[in-house]
Amino acid sequence: MKKIDIFDSTLRDGSQGEGISYSVQDKLNIVRALDELGVSFIEAGNPGSNPKDMEFFQEAKKLTLANSKLVAFGSTRRKDLSCREDANLQSLLSAGTEWVCIFGKAWDFQVTDILHATLDENVEMIRDTVSYLVGEGRKVVFDAEHFFTGYAANAEYALRCLGAAVDGGAECLCLCETKGGAMPMECYNATKTVVEKFGKNPGGISVGIHTHNDSGLAVANSLLAVEAGATHVQGVLLGFGERTGNANLSTIIADLQLKLGCSCIPEDSLRNLTPICKRVAEITNIALNPGMPYVGSSAFAHKAGMHIDAVIKNPFAYEHVEPDRVGNERVFLMSEVAGRSMIIEKVQKFDKSITKSSPVVQEIVTRVKELEHDGYQFEGADASFEILVRKSIGKYQPFFNLHYYKTSGEFPRFADGQCAFCQVKLDVDGNVVVTAGEGDGPVNAMDVALRKALEEFYPNVGQIHLTDYKVRVLDGKSATASKVRVLIESSDGSSTWTTMGVSSDVMEASYIALVDSFEYKLIKDLERKFSKIL
Amino acid sequence: MKKIDIFDSTLRDGSQGEGISYSVQDKLNIVRALDELGVSFIEAGNPGSNPKDMEFFQEAKKLTLANSKLVAFGSTRRKDLSCREDANLQSLLSAGTEWVCIFGKAWDFQVTDILHATLDENVEMIRDTVSYLVGEGRKVVFDAEHFFTGYAANAEYALRCLGAAVDGGAECLCLCETKGGAMPMECYNATKTVVEKFGKNPGGISVGIHTHNDSGLAVANSLLAVEAGATHVQGVLLGFGERTGNANLSTIIADLQLKLGCSCIPEDSLRNLTPICKRVAEITNIALNPGMPYVGSSAFAHKAGMHIDAVIKNPFAYEHVEPDRVGNERVFLMSEVAGRSMIIEKVQKFDKSITKSSPVVQEIVTRVKELEHDGYQFEGADASFEILVRKSIGKYQPFFNLHYYKTSGEFPRFADGQCAFCQVKLDVDGNVVVTAGEGDGPVNAMDVALRKALEEFYPNVGQIHLTDYKVRVLDGKSATASKVRVLIESSDGSSTWTTMGVSSDVMEASYIALVDSFEYKLIKDLERKFSKIL
Repeated sequence: MKKIDIFDSTLRDGSQGEGISYSVQDKLNIVRALDELGVSFIEAGNPGSNPKDMEFFQEAKKLTLANSKLVAFGSTRRKDLSCREDANLQSLLSAGTEWVCIFGKAWDFQVTDILHATLDENVEMIRDTVSYLVGEGRKVVFDAEHFFTGYAANAEYALRCLGAAVDGGAECLCLCETKGGAMPMECYNATKTVVEKFGKNPGGISVGIHTHNDSGLAVANSLLAVEAGATHVQGVLLGFGERTGNANLSTIIADLQLKLGCSCIPEDSLRNLTPICKRVAEITNIALNPGMPYVGSSAFAHKAGMHIDAVIKNPFAYEHVEPDRVGNERVFLMSEVAGRSMIIEKVQKFDKSITKSSPVVQEIVTRVKELEHDGYQFEGADASFEILVRKSIGKYQPFFNLHYYKTSGEFPRFADGQCAFCQVKLDVDGNVVVTAGEGDGPVNAMDVALRKALEEFYPNVGQIHLTDYKVRVLDGKSATASKVRVLIESSDGSSTWTTMGVSSDVMEASYIALVDSFEYKLIKDLERKFSKIL
Repeated sequence: MKKIDIFDSTLRDGSQGEGISYSVQDKLNIVRALDELGVSFIEAGNPGSNPKDMEFFQEAKKLTLANSKLVAFGSTRRKDLSCREDANLQSLLSAGTEWVCIFGKAWDFQVTDILHATLDENVEMIRDTVSYLVGEGRKVVFDAEHFFTGYAANAEYALRCLGAAVDGGAECLCLCETKGGAMPMECYNATKTVVEKFGKNPGGISVGIHTHNDSGLAVANSLLAVEAGATHVQGVLLGFGERTGNANLSTIIADLQLKLGCSCIPEDSLRNLTPICKRVAEITNIALNPGMPYVGSSAFAHKAGMHIDAVIKNPFAYEHVEPDRVGNERVFLMSEVAGRSMIIEKVQKFDKSITKSSPVVQEIVTRVKELEHDGYQFEGADASFEILVRKSIGKYQPFFNLHYYKTSGEFPRFADGQCAFCQVKLDVDGNVVVTAGEGDGPVNAMDVALRKALEEFYPNVGQIHLTDYKVRVLDGKSATASKVRVLIESSDGSSTWTTMGVSSDVMEASYIALVDSFEYKLIKDLERKFSKIL
């Protein structure tokens, strides 16, 4: 099995995609997801260009990663500065990562007409920068920007740039197809030349590939580079990025590992590919394209009738791979089949005697299908899913009941800057509580009012911090009357959980997610406190 | 220039995509669009399987097509019937097209285990069906279903099936990659064998390729088949279809014609590719994926400041082709990183005398930076950006002023299912208007109330439909008190525009975006109506 290093750039090149922007917390969550998937490298930002990226790298030092190495990204030194004087390189070093990725020009036209340097100056900048970073104890991936365009225009010079990075001590030469215009055989042939020149000598360097999808070929060009000898593949897990996007790593990993006999990530992780992709989409706040190969919700969707029978008798008749090898599900049209194995796994935590054929499992499958049809997506909301399972198997009782809530908001704002009010009436352990709260918007006011009502009886509710709140509109076509999905991430300092609500009314969706969050916390506290009894 | 026949199956294989369904009128409109584009063949349905398809073919006889030939689709005869007895074949003939496309099995497993026929029976069904149709004066494309899987399993038998179609008198052997699982070199090698065996003899047949995107390779596999000698490419203009979709012809046409020296459609038609794709998306009632190669709205969008400067100097630096060669446009996204040059481009639409050094440009840059710092992201909101520019250069006056709005929402819902109420007081042209609306959630109620107040004075507000509504939480850390960005897409039937609002209160953010949308529409109507005065 040929080992391929997967280098994910969701947080760097991917974040150049239209409408994509991450908070520091989002970035940390994506690093956790990619580490769980088992990619070799996570390129996490450019500390020299962006104070938010620098803040991230400081936070990231506290992470312990099982599989992946964090990589900071920057460019070769400026032509008129030494490496020591170059503020961007100093920022790069202060990110404190063992690995760095440095991009430099490999196309003569870019050197002379965009960088306004001589060809020799650029070669020197590459050698010098790589060698300086190696001297500072870093391992360096050299991203040869515009390599394929440069190779077509002036192959000798493009190869000379690579040679400078090798001389500087780079660990990997990554060939970047920056404009996304190269054709498959062009990509194959140029990569083969580089592998033969630099990759096969004793102490040969690893050769990488970095593609964009402007010609619809990012995946194919990456695979052909691997067939030509590349052993390092850069891309973005879900394929987003500037213009038409970067190479889609979820597709590439599955192709390489299931079709081309390569090893990219642990086999068990591959079976988690779809749920992890859904999690990354959720954090990024984008909808996962249903038609995305391997991980999209339609990727294994079959039509009704004879076709389904054939697939049931022999899936090989109409499926190129078994969906569970990539954590996806076979779907028969009109039935959004939920992950039965995931359900079994959760249910058995409460009751080991429950098996795949127990009637309660069918009930949960049916309920999940109904809810997913309504817009729920439980991959992103484990706490809401646990509460659903508890409700189905009778291990649930409500901590309170709602009589009503009423919210109001107005503009201009109140004199003190608040703008919303929420009044609630609850029944808690036989006590009727009426109270109210104000906030910065009606959802915030509702959160304040509910906590006030509950803290009197369950003081631990006060430990809950809501660490994230996301709203996704599910059906844009109905505009302001669209259905929305609200996702709330909560923490009590020691653990973190996520809950979800769906409604055409954003207030109701928020209420559902808030209640799940409070109840989950109270259940977990009871389990801990009375572990011997429960 | 190698001539490649493009065979579009939007109306047949494409219509197997989830959620896609065409009326007869839609199908006629798509035929007109594809004919205008200049594809060689339009596969328009299966008259044997579907009475709506039969009705279409009757209507289609009245069309005069300039470039394309209509193709009716069906399967080889049933194993126990003669061609004359087979009702599906008789329906196919009654469609009255000069060209027909017949699919048959080319994978031994499918013959024995799915069709329950012997290998010899299947070969006979192919030869017999093609020969019968040729005898009836038809030109036949033979679609060899599962060819690549069949070739891998039993090459000799797969080739024997093709031979039967040749013996029957087929014009074209189309190799179908039905499961979408083949790798690029596999596709290339198998196609090459077929071309050598059947394509190069005197009177050699044309070889075609039909791929699906299950491995993310539909485009690449099509191109490699062409490099191996195929001269006929089947696919779907926008790439939709069952599971992960069919080969995307808009990408393939551009790649073949702009990169691989082939001729598929007239050069002038290529310059219409993007508008025709938009039209087909419109008829199909789907949103064109912004990241689609060549034709998506982001395909030539630049975000990084460094890239923008370089592209303005020399587009070749970061673009693989000039956007107008495929009828698309270069877009500079407004973003923190975008500089002054792109603001200039927008401002000069109002006032040609404004230059890069005019003080108003600096004012706009500063204002955009402040707003982006607050969470605005103008890359997605052209109408809000235009209103910002108008405000800065004094080409703006408000159509109304707000005294206040008050919203309320509650649970349980009202008896009629509504759950929210909004009351507004506006000043419109010196008239004070107080009114209110109800809705499904407070934002919907606000939309209803504002329209009610404005329509009395500006009836055109009634033409506005909100076609999309998106909420993005900007800073998850403050949870329910987070800042949100609301994006509203509006349409009046003839044009579409996008506006944006940011606030910690989702109501206020929605209000800002709604007002921009209404005002933008009213400004555009004035410009049209008084174009001579303004």
